[in-house]
Amino acid sequence: MKVSLNQKILSRNDQFAQKNRAFFAENGILCLNVISSPGSGKTTLLARTIRRLHDRLQMAVIEGDIRTDHDAQRIRETGAEAVQIETQGACHLSAEQVASALKAMNATSKDVIFIENVGNLVCPSAFDLGESGRVVLLSVPEGDDKPAKYPGTFAGADVVIINKIDLVDYIPFRLERVQADIQAVNPDASILQVSAETGQGFDAWCDWLVGQHAKPS
Amino acid sequence: MKVSLNQKILSRNDQFAQKNRAFFAENGILCLNVISSPGSGKTTLLARTIRRLHDRLQMAVIEGDIRTDHDAQRIRETGAEAVQIETQGACHLSAEQVASALKAMNATSKDVIFIENVGNLVCPSAFDLGESGRVVLLSVPEGDDKPAKYPGTFAGADVVIINKIDLVDYIPFRLERVQADIQAVNPDASILQVSAETGQGFDAWCDWLVGQHAKPS
Repeated sequence: MKVSLNQKILSRNDQFAQKNRAFFAENGILCLNVISSPGSGKTTLLARTIRRLHDRLQMAVIEGDIRTDHDAQRIRETGAEAVQIETQGACHLSAEQVASALKAMNATSKDVIFIENVGNLVCPSAFDLGESGRVVLLSVPEGDDKPAKYPGTFAGADVVIINKIDLVDYIPFRLERVQADIQAVNPDASILQVSAETGQGFDAWCDWLVGQHAKPS
Repeated sequence: MKVSLNQKILSRNDQFAQKNRAFFAENGILCLNVISSPGSGKTTLLARTIRRLHDRLQMAVIEGDIRTDHDAQRIRETGAEAVQIETQGACHLSAEQVASALKAMNATSKDVIFIENVGNLVCPSAFDLGESGRVVLLSVPEGDDKPAKYPGTFAGADVVIINKIDLVDYIPFRLERVQADIQAVNPDASILQVSAETGQGFDAWCDWLVGQHAKPS
């Protein structure tokens, strides 16, 4: 009984995910689902990325939070369009919420749409939003044991961004361990070291992003 | 349909929670459900607390993780008993899992049992485990916007521990904002500033803990 209802919910989500995926493909939009713990630096990463690439790519952000629209405000300060979804308690975004947000924005004019999911390293990874790819962030202060503890989330990433790398000299964090644990569950993931605060590592991250957008979908 | 099934699941959880609560009351055990994002320092806090108070209180830990038993190993290094629950994907502990863990340990000899929930600032707060109280951790690198973004979790805390306070001079973090946002949803919560890494603030935290144990249940 539990299983069949779960399947029903997933299947409604998957229907919307399929529609979203078709919309992105028809309009040549790269859509990236950005997943991490609370406070890993998703919004700071996206704001700096938009400022850095705004001459090359039209970007927008769908923001997911349980409450507040602070993150959408931070994105709008860069000049980019942002739509806030307040989930009112729900621990992840659904494909249906993303479909509504796409209607609320000028989506067809965009090259890249980021979906900043609710800060949660577990639940968002179980819900397909129709995205083209997944970006998983892990910040240095969270500790180097996280890929081993949350393998499902890291297994679904196209790229893992190790953020707050400027703090690596001040906090015990074994990069080799993190890389090995990610590769054990996801040998194809790119692993990038960045600081969204200082800009360190942004050349490689922006190259990755531009390359993903240029790929035929 | 969705609602009624949710109620059924909660009610099964609540049945086990009631049994756990009765068990703790009968045996004079203070049981604290410890909730935070991944990497806020729950295990480090508990390990230092056990080392510091082992002469005064018999303590044990029930560890919840999606995968790995690293945290239980870290607790056992302090000499305390620890039982690891691997949730295999689930984003929170259930009262039934806690009941099983209590059977697997020498529970009746303990003064304090900590339940270190799965690292997740959302889902664990919706599930009563039968605990006597809740400890919510927020670490400075996660940012000062978290109580506003996750009000439900902070509203349920008996004590909020602001951890990694030794980093507050290096990272933008407005303590007044955090305190105001917690008080707005939870005027009765104690708010403590600690560093589980350095021991800063542990006098007040240990006093709080000893005081909670001494209270008639």
